[in-house]
Amino acid sequence: MSNTTIKILAKQLNLSVATVSKALRDSYEISNETKQKVLTLAKELNYVPNPYASSLRKRVSNTIAVVLPEVADSFFSQAINGIESIAQDKGYHVLIYLTHENFVREEAILKEFQSGRVDGILISVSGETSQSDHIKNVMTSGIPIVFFDRVCEDVKTARVVTDDFECGYNATIHLAKQGCKKIAYLAAPSNLSISNNRMQGYKKALEELGYKNDDQEILYCGDDTAKDYENIKKLLKKENRPDGLIACVEKFTTDVYLACKDMNLSIPGDVKVISFTNLQTAPILNPSLTTITQPAFEMGQKAASVLFESLCKKKSDLKNETIVIPSVLHKRDSTA
Amino acid sequence: MSNTTIKILAKQLNLSVATVSKALRDSYEISNETKQKVLTLAKELNYVPNPYASSLRKRVSNTIAVVLPEVADSFFSQAINGIESIAQDKGYHVLIYLTHENFVREEAILKEFQSGRVDGILISVSGETSQSDHIKNVMTSGIPIVFFDRVCEDVKTARVVTDDFECGYNATIHLAKQGCKKIAYLAAPSNLSISNNRMQGYKKALEELGYKNDDQEILYCGDDTAKDYENIKKLLKKENRPDGLIACVEKFTTDVYLACKDMNLSIPGDVKVISFTNLQTAPILNPSLTTITQPAFEMGQKAASVLFESLCKKKSDLKNETIVIPSVLHKRDSTA
Repeated sequence: MSNTTIKILAKQLNLSVATVSKALRDSYEISNETKQKVLTLAKELNYVPNPYASSLRKRVSNTIAVVLPEVADSFFSQAINGIESIAQDKGYHVLIYLTHENFVREEAILKEFQSGRVDGILISVSGETSQSDHIKNVMTSGIPIVFFDRVCEDVKTARVVTDDFECGYNATIHLAKQGCKKIAYLAAPSNLSISNNRMQGYKKALEELGYKNDDQEILYCGDDTAKDYENIKKLLKKENRPDGLIACVEKFTTDVYLACKDMNLSIPGDVKVISFTNLQTAPILNPSLTTITQPAFEMGQKAASVLFESLCKKKSDLKNETIVIPSVLHKRDSTA
Repeated sequence: MSNTTIKILAKQLNLSVATVSKALRDSYEISNETKQKVLTLAKELNYVPNPYASSLRKRVSNTIAVVLPEVADSFFSQAINGIESIAQDKGYHVLIYLTHENFVREEAILKEFQSGRVDGILISVSGETSQSDHIKNVMTSGIPIVFFDRVCEDVKTARVVTDDFECGYNATIHLAKQGCKKIAYLAAPSNLSISNNRMQGYKKALEELGYKNDDQEILYCGDDTAKDYENIKKLLKKENRPDGLIACVEKFTTDVYLACKDMNLSIPGDVKVISFTNLQTAPILNPSLTTITQPAFEMGQKAASVLFESLCKKKSDLKNETIVIPSVLHKRDSTA
């Protein structure tokens, strides 16, 4: 705490605490002369307002929370930059909370918010999140929430997403055009909206291409890195092994590349690979990686903008709407 | 805000606000019977204490701040995970602030902290930070600060770092052993402790190897990605161009690889490359990248542990000490 309080200012200036407080808030009740005296001394003594007292009075914390599964992912780190770019303009603090893909932790974090620690929340839910009562409770207590990327469809609020279904579809069609006969989908845990939407696109494409049901091959990953790696190798050891792989999240990419290397399978000769990722290193991988690149920065910016629009109003008026910003397919050597 | 306040509880129970407040804090002045009544109704009405009122009373916020240049870097994202693993155990919130390598922003963030919004601070300074008054001011106001990775040497507090000098030295010796005759160092902005310490190690190694002063080649990067890329290409176009490169931070790696590709220079045939980075994709780059890998998670954990030890005491007692956790050299194809 700074040692200078309103009391100290008042005493030195021989004014009442109420007068000093009002002068600091630029109240019309106080003369310009007095305001000047107060501000001069406040500066001299390095007075900094106590944010908790100030928050109590104004009932705003000037803080928004960003709830994320992790930051060790290029999508989330770029999305945070987008969110920050807007928050900084508005003079808001950004509080980043990590769930580490754990539902119990997400619940505990959201429960905290009911106490008014933050004015609004941006959230991308964990891979374990299959219901949304914890989110609805916070909204009921008057704190607006906007989803980005990973959403709960049943919560009536704004959602900023990318075109996951179309991208799953396009990734599959691209692999088929490149000659793949058996395309596997590496899925994230089954509750995750993004993984499911991308998978629906994959299924739709296979159907249109006239592939049989037997040609579908879905491997759920993401619980445990060591297990993921073994499961990917098992998949690639199958007699009728896939010659095309779609990694639905970034962290499966390294496992796929290392498994292929370990098994002497050539990418793209034996297996073609496409990944949903914003990795900066995609062009310098061996081979360079075909990616579905999400508009991470723009999605963060948009989600923050929608939230701040709502915060400017007396009562949150977030529409139940889905805002879609499309991703881009970058063709590189891994699917050549 | 949750709609249930202490006032509402008091009214419904026909008790005074002070009594309810004391009961909620488990005061010895209140009978067990009354406490039970209060807690039962509080649970029924989903009462959540207001954290700002609570912070004012206890003068603690149960929050620590982590001030970082960015999260789009594997070192920082892993360090955050280390910090969080400790904070969670202690029941603390982690507030992440990003300076985006901007000194003015870092100053503004630190100024804020003087108001007592957080109980303690972990900081890794920006590339522009050349003086430390803003940090000393916060410490003077009674809030403990621990540095990790990027430090200000003149601030008397705990610093958790890695063995940057030794790693700069070892990287240079490794390149020389692999046959490099002219080794260049890609430096971050000149104020940065880690870049300078690594560079001193580089210079020391060159000296021991009997290289002349003319053999030193230091290129400052990090201001602007497009400019960095052009400058790296200029360096590689020189008549007496380097055959070994040390990238002192992760983000120069992609530029170096792309510049070599663009100029038809083979890595490691024409230029050998070593990078300070914790990139997960290092083994699957083309070619796989030799790295100095920092103990990012452990450094985050250690810095948080030191800070929490200090927070447990009535008065901060952080020693003026430097705690060193060594990095590891992983040899891969880029220096073969």
